[in-house]
Amino acid sequence: MKFSKRMDNMKASEIREILKLTLRPEIISFAGGLPAPELFPVEQMEKVSQKVISTIGREALQYSTTEGYDPLRKHIVDRMSKMSIKTTFENILVTSGSQQGLEFSGKIFLDPDDIVICESPSYLGAINAFKSYECQFREIQTDEHGMIMSHLEETIKENPKTKFIYVIPDFQNPSGRTWSLERRQKLIEIANKYDLVVVEDNPYGELRYEGEHLPAVKSLDTEGRVVFLGTFSKTFAPGLRIGWVCAEDELLNKYIMVKQGSDLQTSSMSQRELSVYLDDYSLDEHIEKIIAVYKTRRNLMIDTMKKTFPSEAKYIIPEGGLFIWVELPEHIDTKELMVKAVADNVAFVPGGSFFPNSDTRNTMRLNFSNMNEENIVEGITRLGKLLNNEL
Amino acid sequence: MKFSKRMDNMKASEIREILKLTLRPEIISFAGGLPAPELFPVEQMEKVSQKVISTIGREALQYSTTEGYDPLRKHIVDRMSKMSIKTTFENILVTSGSQQGLEFSGKIFLDPDDIVICESPSYLGAINAFKSYECQFREIQTDEHGMIMSHLEETIKENPKTKFIYVIPDFQNPSGRTWSLERRQKLIEIANKYDLVVVEDNPYGELRYEGEHLPAVKSLDTEGRVVFLGTFSKTFAPGLRIGWVCAEDELLNKYIMVKQGSDLQTSSMSQRELSVYLDDYSLDEHIEKIIAVYKTRRNLMIDTMKKTFPSEAKYIIPEGGLFIWVELPEHIDTKELMVKAVADNVAFVPGGSFFPNSDTRNTMRLNFSNMNEENIVEGITRLGKLLNNEL
Repeated sequence: MKFSKRMDNMKASEIREILKLTLRPEIISFAGGLPAPELFPVEQMEKVSQKVISTIGREALQYSTTEGYDPLRKHIVDRMSKMSIKTTFENILVTSGSQQGLEFSGKIFLDPDDIVICESPSYLGAINAFKSYECQFREIQTDEHGMIMSHLEETIKENPKTKFIYVIPDFQNPSGRTWSLERRQKLIEIANKYDLVVVEDNPYGELRYEGEHLPAVKSLDTEGRVVFLGTFSKTFAPGLRIGWVCAEDELLNKYIMVKQGSDLQTSSMSQRELSVYLDDYSLDEHIEKIIAVYKTRRNLMIDTMKKTFPSEAKYIIPEGGLFIWVELPEHIDTKELMVKAVADNVAFVPGGSFFPNSDTRNTMRLNFSNMNEENIVEGITRLGKLLNNEL
Repeated sequence: MKFSKRMDNMKASEIREILKLTLRPEIISFAGGLPAPELFPVEQMEKVSQKVISTIGREALQYSTTEGYDPLRKHIVDRMSKMSIKTTFENILVTSGSQQGLEFSGKIFLDPDDIVICESPSYLGAINAFKSYECQFREIQTDEHGMIMSHLEETIKENPKTKFIYVIPDFQNPSGRTWSLERRQKLIEIANKYDLVVVEDNPYGELRYEGEHLPAVKSLDTEGRVVFLGTFSKTFAPGLRIGWVCAEDELLNKYIMVKQGSDLQTSSMSQRELSVYLDDYSLDEHIEKIIAVYKTRRNLMIDTMKKTFPSEAKYIIPEGGLFIWVELPEHIDTKELMVKAVADNVAFVPGGSFFPNSDTRNTMRLNFSNMNEENIVEGITRLGKLLNNEL
């Protein structure tokens, strides 16, 4: 049996494999990126699903358009305006989570050996989606304000086969960093200058725990070259698999065509359920509740890290999102550390997979959204002990 | 903006574009492939969705495994046994409709200029999904028993870059034809001999209106080289977007990896809703109701065609499925005919798009599942008049 060449590049996500290990109930896992299920609006969804099936049940069970359910597309336009983006529902394609938007971006832009420019580190799920189209990566150094622009421009000049720049400007996964307004503006300038597409991935932008909201890169787009990927997975619930692509007309048409060939459309039922939820309830109020809980968890995790982690472990306090990124001294290999951690019934994600090229072994990603307060203290304390033994 | 080369091969599905035209309520459309919404089990789904959200609501709103919800995978194993296929739930991947299984097959097997062998005509959605991986097609002549095996073998010999053979052995879309047992067995022999994969697409197999059930090609597979694609879209409802891939271990792992990068997983909610429906109700009984209605519609369409179509229009009576395929004299161009038909408020799909290579203009596909009896008589009569005028 002969597979396509692209399959040589594909391996099962390390996180997924690790997550399987950590399903044992005695393990305190900071490895996933799951939202807190105790916050899901279950009672409201009970009313919503009842309403959908009893009023528009036949429509919700039938095929519908590839682009998505228009009332939901209009709700998405409202959400976009909260990220300072003015758009219309015709510029929205509903996808099966924002992972599908990443996959489609790879399919639409990448021929073998084309270049994707990304932050260093960058989101593992995006790296894997793009890699399946046989591209290469160039990692750009970042500081606390985002990509270092001189390095970006230099890299573009050196790599004429660059197709797009992939960025997560708000509470980046995994680093937790947020781009400054100045860097966002400069990114658009550079994209315009070199005729490049920007793929802006924003799954966490609405989960800000402090500081001021910054406009999305898409809102600064002057030439229609930013593709914005959004999702309800972190602000509502991931189980419905609803995300979206926002792009200008001609560009969005490519995504619609690819969606059609990929799975025809996203679930008619899920789209209607989410849309009716957004009609009948305030997602903003729901997000406020999520923010309150996650902020407490983030603070508690940081406080416990301050008390228990050795001073050689470096991390920043993310202003939002789900993750804390830890850099350890270079001689520490977090993949090896993970084995010891699991023996101590605590888990994290070794950071290596977030670097598409460089062999970086001394980092780890910690998730704080999916663990209760008691377990955060207990788990981080265990991890701190382990780190102190190693250093 | 530079797109990937594969985008040159992609154009919006002609059917989708035509369907847009035919959304006007005054049009009697035989163009789609939609199931009859009046048959959807809405009352049962009301109870089911209530039960899911109130008993396992948090789980249904959370991320879950890429492979799919195990109880649903086990139900799928039961369905497969009705098609004479013995398998286990570990060999099932839940997909977002069987269209996604087609897309994944393209991604897993096809490099540019690889060959896909298919029936002539073949399913448009599959052709488009495969084409997006820059393959080429070889069409095999078929008769009333399926592909002509001497032509298949000859074509394989001439095309060493053949990666797989794509077949719809039951009530083929669009031709309505069903493969004989002998041809199914011979197909497996040839696939074994030339070390090829068979992609068996079976969306309609359970919708048989007469004659005896024939075992799926997958059930005859001796070397684990058949990938079976199934779906609940035609037997239950398409709006939930639930299909599946059944394949042997190593091969299924490729599909799971590709699924992970594509959209992580199919909706947790939809999978649980369908699974609870299958726990609490009999899908077999539901399918019996569908069969009764569709059989009546098929018979009525055939009877009306006999009365109103000119004798030059050739068609066979399909033993199941959703479609009647019509071949007209060679000088008729059904794309041109379609314009006149829409002016008469009746629609069909011109057959040209079902031939990936050959320029065949004198065919049309008629759907009988989605139209009530009165409209079938009225629409087919209008079409008959139009054909009589043309001939």
